[in-house]
Amino acid sequence: MAAATAILQLICPDRPGLVSELSGWVAANGGNIRHADHHTDSGAGLFLSRLEWDLERFGLPRDALPAAARALAERLGGDGQLHFSDRPARVALFVSRQDHCLLDLLWRTRAGELPMTVPLVIANHPDLRPIAEDFGARFELVPVTAAGKAEAEARQLQLLAEERIDLAVLAKYMQVLSGDFLARFSRVINIHHSFLPAFKGAQPYQRAWERGVKLIGATAHYVTEELDDGPIIEQATVRVSHRDEVDDLIRKGRDMERLALARALRLHLRHQVMVYRGRTAVFD
Amino acid sequence: MAAATAILQLICPDRPGLVSELSGWVAANGGNIRHADHHTDSGAGLFLSRLEWDLERFGLPRDALPAAARALAERLGGDGQLHFSDRPARVALFVSRQDHCLLDLLWRTRAGELPMTVPLVIANHPDLRPIAEDFGARFELVPVTAAGKAEAEARQLQLLAEERIDLAVLAKYMQVLSGDFLARFSRVINIHHSFLPAFKGAQPYQRAWERGVKLIGATAHYVTEELDDGPIIEQATVRVSHRDEVDDLIRKGRDMERLALARALRLHLRHQVMVYRGRTAVFD
Amino acid sequence: MAAATAILQLICPDRPGLVSELSGWVAANGGNIRHADHHTDSGAGLFLSRLEWDLERFGLPRDALPAAARALAERLGGDGQLHFSDRPARVALFVSRQDHCLLDLLWRTRAGELPMTVPLVIANHPDLRPIAEDFGARFELVPVTAAGKAEAEARQLQLLAEERIDLAVLAKYMQVLSGDFLARFSRVINIHHSFLPAFKGAQPYQRAWERGVKLIGATAHYVTEELDDGPIIEQATVRVSHRDEVDDLIRKGRDMERLALARALRLHLRHQVMVYRGRTAVFD
Amino acid sequence: MAAATAILQLICPDRPGLVSELSGWVAANGGNIRHADHHTDSGAGLFLSRLEWDLERFGLPRDALPAAARALAERLGGDGQLHFSDRPARVALFVSRQDHCLLDLLWRTRAGELPMTVPLVIANHPDLRPIAEDFGARFELVPVTAAGKAEAEARQLQLLAEERIDLAVLAKYMQVLSGDFLARFSRVINIHHSFLPAFKGAQPYQRAWERGVKLIGATAHYVTEELDDGPIIEQATVRVSHRDEVDDLIRKGRDMERLALARALRLHLRHQVMVYRGRTAVFD
Repeated sequence: MAAATAILQLICPDRPGLVSELSGWVAANGGNIRHADHHTDSGAGLFLSRLEWDLERFGLPRDALPAAARALAERLGGDGQLHFSDRPARVALFVSRQDHCLLDLLWRTRAGELPMTVPLVIANHPDLRPIAEDFGARFELVPVTAAGKAEAEARQLQLLAEERIDLAVLAKYMQVLSGDFLARFSRVINIHHSFLPAFKGAQPYQRAWERGVKLIGATAHYVTEELDDGPIIEQATVRVSHRDEVDDLIRKGRDMERLALARALRLHLRHQVMVYRGRTAVFD
Repeated sequence: MAAATAILQLICPDRPGLVSELSGWVAANGGNIRHADHHTDSGAGLFLSRLEWDLERFGLPRDALPAAARALAERLGGDGQLHFSDRPARVALFVSRQDHCLLDLLWRTRAGELPMTVPLVIANHPDLRPIAEDFGARFELVPVTAAGKAEAEARQLQLLAEERIDLAVLAKYMQVLSGDFLARFSRVINIHHSFLPAFKGAQPYQRAWERGVKLIGATAHYVTEELDDGPIIEQATVRVSHRDEVDDLIRKGRDMERLALARALRLHLRHQVMVYRGRTAVFD
Repeated sequence: MAAATAILQLICPDRPGLVSELSGWVAANGGNIRHADHHTDSGAGLFLSRLEWDLERFGLPRDALPAAARALAERLGGDGQLHFSDRPARVALFVSRQDHCLLDLLWRTRAGELPMTVPLVIANHPDLRPIAEDFGARFELVPVTAAGKAEAEARQLQLLAEERIDLAVLAKYMQVLSGDFLARFSRVINIHHSFLPAFKGAQPYQRAWERGVKLIGATAHYVTEELDDGPIIEQATVRVSHRDEVDDLIRKGRDMERLALARALRLHLRHQVMVYRGRTAVFD
Repeated sequence: MAAATAILQLICPDRPGLVSELSGWVAANGGNIRHADHHTDSGAGLFLSRLEWDLERFGLPRDALPAAARALAERLGGDGQLHFSDRPARVALFVSRQDHCLLDLLWRTRAGELPMTVPLVIANHPDLRPIAEDFGARFELVPVTAAGKAEAEARQLQLLAEERIDLAVLAKYMQVLSGDFLARFSRVINIHHSFLPAFKGAQPYQRAWERGVKLIGATAHYVTEELDDGPIIEQATVRVSHRDEVDDLIRKGRDMERLALARALRLHLRHQVMVYRGRTAVFD
């Protein structure tokens, strides 16, 4: 297994010397940098940085690192987050009736492709209980009705808290989370079954078929209150033709959904994605 | 050079026996079928067929073929068109200031990739005259102003008639043709610089950048009065990242525009595209 | 569920009138053609055809169809095969220790993407028994050693016969089948973990990494005695970079392996693939 | 126009602190880093770095920079090269009879996509003189025969020296440069018309057709004495089918050749490519 690393994600106003200042801070504490990625958004006047270094023999104690990182970020007038590569995220999967993304993510987790554990699967239908439990996840059925949505979301939030969940993934959940929910738990990734911003909203495959497009796609994005409008992490497309019926689009689309969601999730979990101004910088 | 062929495109109500009836008609007249493609749209109850056969030794005289094809189509309650592979289309290219599609299409025509001639280039700016004339095309400057649009379009239509143009291609023309124009000349293909239906309308690259998409695209489509809503012939996408500025999107997009437009045009010119109900069937 | 169809695959020497003769034969027996695809290989002087028509109300009894098709093919001096869409193939999956293709194919079968059943999984290691049995397949462990290969293959052939297997799929089997085996059971599809003909043989990902390629791929092909040289059905590629280690190539490659194998298998099972002269025509 | 930058490419043995040391060196001299990319090849124990910073207000005089960079590299036990973004490379294009890559590169240069000038086109056939001269390049015909190859290469080297050429690009040159030539001028990029290492050597499209592959490709690489074995910069693939004849593969391949070559050249010219141990790291 790879040796543990610390990962600093930092966003601050751009000015000369930041690359040197940040890498100097790591070096001054005896750190060996593994990866250093930076991006400047000139229009926004922002500097984004991701630094990853070996934890072993680093001069600051692990416990002190998050506070040290925050202090560093404050000195630079920005925001900083510190992550540890040997602490896999605790991820909850929200599902409905379709099993392809659920099974794919559980398999990839077991295969070591995704640095996470899945302690919890929340579903609004009972169908996928066997798959979740096969992979050792707690399966909780939380039916959602128009009238009972607030109550259902309260229950979901309680479950997320109980299981100390870091990230929720809507793996074909087919339900919209309310602004209230997102205000209380905002780390949510969704897979949308179209090449956004084309075909926002419901039934994208049916509408793609009617429009006669020659490529269909899938989009993995962070969830925001504005539906299908959150920062995009990853997109994938596949060719279709007039010979494809709506069912064929759905079938081909499932492959793209799995690929886009798995890639996005891996990028997020390795802290390679930084969000700012409704967009993402992906250091891959 | 390949031997000349006749190509029948036919759309009619679906019923049993049509494949046999059509190929039987060709065989009964001594024709050797080279390609036979069919598609049934069950929802619409329509049968689409494209038959291509050798002209040499065919039993009906060439002059009589179009009428014979129309009669056949009428018997089947549908529409039929007959084309000859040795009659290259006369194509007018509409351009503005950007030269990449113009040069690409002229080069491909000279290289034998596109079965067409380009007797006419119509531009609303004078910049591209040298390229057009280098390749032997007549270059006509028709400036377009808000006030003088009707007059400009009248002039354009006159030029199309003069040069007996079969097809107009908007090769980064950056102007919208009016419904009046299209009512009088409807065989028009456009290249739109986005992955339709995402980013319809103006400045798609700027908007794609702002939205933070991870793929951009280009769409070649037939022009209809409803802007950017015509039947799609071909689409292409290319990956972009946060490191790409708007100018990079434009640069990468140009490659996709050229590819999508050239492919669409080749398909159209070989009579492999059939349009029905706002969609296309592409027999490639 | 879709109504049952008959599918004729025919290869014969090319001559005028074949399209009409074949579709006429179907029509004369009252058949309604759903799909008709043809291809002429001029160099080889061969005509390939795939016709699919509704079984319901067809004039010949189902039992008589295979013989009638053979007689038709003989009249044309070629070979013909008749298939029925409502008879799913009985497929045996050969596996070793890697589970991604096995799980993917079993999932796709259950999801209705692949018209087949999997009565049998043959493995040379015991690891994948739980997955096979979860999906209701008989799991047979047949260890293969250099000394005991002939014996192992005899056992495999016996199992294929017992379960009346139509097709064997090497889903990351990592073993080579002998010429003797293939002489006795030749309907075998393999997934090779490279973009053939690059990196034939062992350890393609390691060699791809050493060569520093910028794309890696996977190839699904029919198995012939000449290793990695059988007719190709489907290929897929994915981008890699210098940041990818061999393990990353393996991980990215797994996605391409699954996609290429699943697509190839679907095409084969729907009788859309025709093999001739070491190549395939794929009517998709 | 973008402000001028200095670009340092450095390869040295890996050890802790290098990122900080390099960026510290730039900062200590008052430089504002625009891009900083690093890569560690653990197996080889090598550290690769590319740093780009604003020239304006940098503390060291421009003239002194190359020597300062060499000294820095020596201190680290490695090799360093310094480039200036405002000094476009002088590139010679080697061509034969095919014009698509020549025209594409000249057009892209004029369009500002490639930071280079093309003072010289060397051809072994006279056909492409008009294109070269249209774009203002000196066109030199240097016929190559088996007997006169040494003489021809001497003439080519003389021309490269005369025009102070930084880089030669074999834009479908269809000739092999000798080891002697490469010993005297080694900065050469080639476009190979296959997805290397598949179909090394002559007639790759013919052989790809015969093998029945489902994707074809193109590979841009640095030229080494071992034919088609140099470090790969960029590759592209496109789908083909049984309906494509060899001529169609050639036509589709031309598009991939242009794309792969143009992308590779842009990466090289922006000093984003680093070569080591027969491989490339591409910082894009």
